[in-house]
Amino acid sequence: MSVPALSALRQELARQRLDGFIVPRADEHLGEYVPAAAERLAWLSGFTGSAGLAIVLAETAAVFTDGRYVLQLAEQTDSEAWQRLHITEEPPPTWLAQHAPKKARIGYDPLLISEEGLARYTGAELDMVAVERNPIDAVWTDRPAPPTVPALPHPLAYAGRTSEDKRADVAKLLRDAKQDAAVLTDPASIAWLLNIRGGDVPFTPFALGFALVHADGATDLFMAPEKLPAATRAWLGNTVSVADRHAIGSALDKLAGKTVRVDASGSPVWFAQRLLKAGAVVSSASDPCLLPKACKNATEQQGTRDAHLRDAVAVCRFLHWLSITAPTGQETEMSAAAALLAFRRKVDGFRGESFPAISGAGEHGAIIHYRVTDDSNRAIRPDEVYLIDSGAQYPDGTTDITRTLWTGPGDPPETVRDRVTRVMQGHIAIATAVFPKGVGGAHLDAFARRALWQAGLDYDHGTGHGVGSYLSVHEGPVSISRLARPVPIDTGMILSNEPGFYLPDHYGIRLENLLLVQTADIPGAQKPFLDFETLTLAPFDRRLLQPALMTAQERAWLDAYHARVLRAVGPLLGEAEQAWLAAACAPLG
Amino acid sequence: MSVPALSALRQELARQRLDGFIVPRADEHLGEYVPAAAERLAWLSGFTGSAGLAIVLAETAAVFTDGRYVLQLAEQTDSEAWQRLHITEEPPPTWLAQHAPKKARIGYDPLLISEEGLARYTGAELDMVAVERNPIDAVWTDRPAPPTVPALPHPLAYAGRTSEDKRADVAKLLRDAKQDAAVLTDPASIAWLLNIRGGDVPFTPFALGFALVHADGATDLFMAPEKLPAATRAWLGNTVSVADRHAIGSALDKLAGKTVRVDASGSPVWFAQRLLKAGAVVSSASDPCLLPKACKNATEQQGTRDAHLRDAVAVCRFLHWLSITAPTGQETEMSAAAALLAFRRKVDGFRGESFPAISGAGEHGAIIHYRVTDDSNRAIRPDEVYLIDSGAQYPDGTTDITRTLWTGPGDPPETVRDRVTRVMQGHIAIATAVFPKGVGGAHLDAFARRALWQAGLDYDHGTGHGVGSYLSVHEGPVSISRLARPVPIDTGMILSNEPGFYLPDHYGIRLENLLLVQTADIPGAQKPFLDFETLTLAPFDRRLLQPALMTAQERAWLDAYHARVLRAVGPLLGEAEQAWLAAACAPLG
Repeated sequence: MSVPALSALRQELARQRLDGFIVPRADEHLGEYVPAAAERLAWLSGFTGSAGLAIVLAETAAVFTDGRYVLQLAEQTDSEAWQRLHITEEPPPTWLAQHAPKKARIGYDPLLISEEGLARYTGAELDMVAVERNPIDAVWTDRPAPPTVPALPHPLAYAGRTSEDKRADVAKLLRDAKQDAAVLTDPASIAWLLNIRGGDVPFTPFALGFALVHADGATDLFMAPEKLPAATRAWLGNTVSVADRHAIGSALDKLAGKTVRVDASGSPVWFAQRLLKAGAVVSSASDPCLLPKACKNATEQQGTRDAHLRDAVAVCRFLHWLSITAPTGQETEMSAAAALLAFRRKVDGFRGESFPAISGAGEHGAIIHYRVTDDSNRAIRPDEVYLIDSGAQYPDGTTDITRTLWTGPGDPPETVRDRVTRVMQGHIAIATAVFPKGVGGAHLDAFARRALWQAGLDYDHGTGHGVGSYLSVHEGPVSISRLARPVPIDTGMILSNEPGFYLPDHYGIRLENLLLVQTADIPGAQKPFLDFETLTLAPFDRRLLQPALMTAQERAWLDAYHARVLRAVGPLLGEAEQAWLAAACAPLG
Repeated sequence: MSVPALSALRQELARQRLDGFIVPRADEHLGEYVPAAAERLAWLSGFTGSAGLAIVLAETAAVFTDGRYVLQLAEQTDSEAWQRLHITEEPPPTWLAQHAPKKARIGYDPLLISEEGLARYTGAELDMVAVERNPIDAVWTDRPAPPTVPALPHPLAYAGRTSEDKRADVAKLLRDAKQDAAVLTDPASIAWLLNIRGGDVPFTPFALGFALVHADGATDLFMAPEKLPAATRAWLGNTVSVADRHAIGSALDKLAGKTVRVDASGSPVWFAQRLLKAGAVVSSASDPCLLPKACKNATEQQGTRDAHLRDAVAVCRFLHWLSITAPTGQETEMSAAAALLAFRRKVDGFRGESFPAISGAGEHGAIIHYRVTDDSNRAIRPDEVYLIDSGAQYPDGTTDITRTLWTGPGDPPETVRDRVTRVMQGHIAIATAVFPKGVGGAHLDAFARRALWQAGLDYDHGTGHGVGSYLSVHEGPVSISRLARPVPIDTGMILSNEPGFYLPDHYGIRLENLLLVQTADIPGAQKPFLDFETLTLAPFDRRLLQPALMTAQERAWLDAYHARVLRAVGPLLGEAEQAWLAAACAPLG
């Protein structure tokens, strides 16, 4: 199927007098999940992974993805038609510079690439051409319709602050920066700013659209009108104008002479190009909603605590169920994930998973972003390591938890316990960290790795990501990672704490809780300090730990955490589950 | 004296039709120490601190420095003539934009500011004018002559590699980057590359000059001919051409059409400006000697070990002497520093201090860069905290050590012991860190602060800086700091490990050893890991520690370190000193 698509695209490129074309996986919002109508890369190449990019030239074509998807890329794409490449080992701009003739006209869709993304291609001697209409759309005859799930009010009981209030803050931020307006292209920012939620893409409850916020707080929302029922329009109020999504172009044209804020890394380059053409001044700065959205207000903070407690009931039921079924070897990666989902469906307010669950037994656990399929699914066997990373969306909060378990009935090998203990020490080092205001995630990351590093071990991913409030489970701008942006961690942010260790072909370990950043209460502190409140409430598998390797403080933290889990979740469980939880939460020997 | 200078400068500015002029403290090498001939800021304003900048306008003038020198600035400058400002709280570019008329012609000497430094001024609506001749030099009638200390060979027994060999490496680096030549303006780079040492500035044994390295390894040295005796010329060999310092301009002009590497942050902007005018292509990249100079070869590594052992003898003698004299209250900050210098003068190969010693008793220890003067000097009293930070230059290595001592004869307060213990824990966390290749200093810095942070405490400086091999005691490109450049730590680098704690008006604590980066020997490591060898050999004051606060591993590290100090240094001391050292190095209780 992919090869006819490729031929059709090449014919269209010839018609548009283009020597090549860049096909990112992104849609016009440059986010993690895209609707079926935007799955151009999958239509063209057959590759359905969540990260990738293709470049099509007249005679040759390449499709790139990262380490997570290299095998899937090989399975899903035709080696006759495509070079299949590792995106960091052979960066697309380098490949293009090597394979395209000098001065070649290379098309790109300016709605699908950021200014910073495009800049990576402009060093070579190529003529980069912004297409007016995506040539794929011209030949993709059976393209699905865009999603039309209604956008609904996100009540104040969850949002905590009115949209007027939030917009007044953002407007002040714009005025202070001498900007007349800001372009919002991230649907999560729009959802936060206008207190609405939708369902256009899987796992993240927002509605696709664009917005312009003006320096007086008035906001223009560009969204398909059929997604905005009367109740939502009323909720938005009369300082929010609504127009069809495609009206954004002429609205930008009207900003001639104005200074308009655009996010050069988060927004498609089309916006800056259009504004410049219209005679506006483009002020490059981050999306003004990013920081206030990341710092949850008191209502959102209490909401996430409530959501985590309800979610914990499902997780603890699942862990109890698994403690019985796993040693029998009768469950599979898929059936276990389905069981957890079934437990979650019974939770008040459950609206869906916050990302596709990772359910990896043994060697599958070592594949960091493993996603079980009918083909890969296998039994969860007795006496092996099993990793499950999952999360849920509730109107009061988004959850994300990973536990690594020993299936039993035997005892785990000592080396496995050594590794799990080191990961646990890293998790505790983050959970107990105290740090001054102003510190960023790049400076805390090593705490999580120290115990592993001492043994010559490490993990090849960040330690933590931001999490939204009934929004994206991966939210910027803060993370705990060597590669974290230089944005200080601040009160109200929700971050994951998920160090790991992976022994390829054998097992994977990851221990993840979510954390809420709070002001540290330290009598006599020299200056403002922050620390973390752990939100997630579920036991870690004590069988996988070696208490003798841990310090007294580390053991005390774990015992106190388990006591808290038992106290909070125990009363919400049935009798057998409660007994199991009491044993799982018993102090370390 | 400063006000006539200011009037004379203003008259010269009027003659040159300039509305203002920027006077940095830097010389043409943008380094830490400058010769008397380049002390323009001191001549103009009276301010002699090592960091500062003045801006002179027709009616008003301001002089800026950082927190270290605010008091000194107020004492040394005339408040009628100068606004005296904090350089980070009121950044000079902001002050200039506020005080200069629009379109004002503001002069700067392009030899005294980097491209990055200049860029901070170019945002405002000012006409920034590169002067041909520094207007201060035109009116500074009693300006000292430039230094003419001879540059001498740095023998292979210390350098470890021939200049030819080093130049071949740098030349390959240039060819790989498709650069025809590189401009060197850092005298430390020239000293390293050509294996020469000089004495033009205090504390750092290099000779001031410029150089051009070509992609075939041939090098042009621009240095006053009287500084190059025949033996040095012979040592340089026939692939190094020598010309007077002022011939660099015409040499740059001859690079028309070539691609020339210039360090935009480390070199004066004059070089790029001249090259561009000459028709060369300027390739902005870091000084190509920075990294290879930082990674000491095996000879330099053994040299620094040897130098540290000899230096340790002087330091231990001093500490023994102080243990007797301090409780009497008869010594002063100056006499103690002089005593340490006297002990060091007896060490084989001692060539001078590597920086002005910081000798701070009680509240003076809380001034991070305190430099004792006749005015500030005070007695070291019994029963207080005393901090001494000092270092020496030897041909085989550069040292830098800080110890914090309790003068006795009584016992230190518990809170002081708590603080010192937390700083010690930070020191040990760095000393024992193991980390993968690729990690930078920004990722390790928090290890040094964790124990302090837990108590709401911190220190307002980096944890460590690079150190040269018989070169600068502050050497780039790597440091251990939140603000560290993103350059990975690598084998052979020498870094300081100096966490601290300062209670203003009371005391300062800093515990500093130098570290050598080495490959970690970990059986079964997943990938290459690095760790540190501690170079410095002198006891920490055990009276200031609370062993009960430390973990068993921390106590074991300190006991092992002290045992090593005793083993290495003890046999080189006299009998009484040896007995004292044995007690000072006894295991923690």
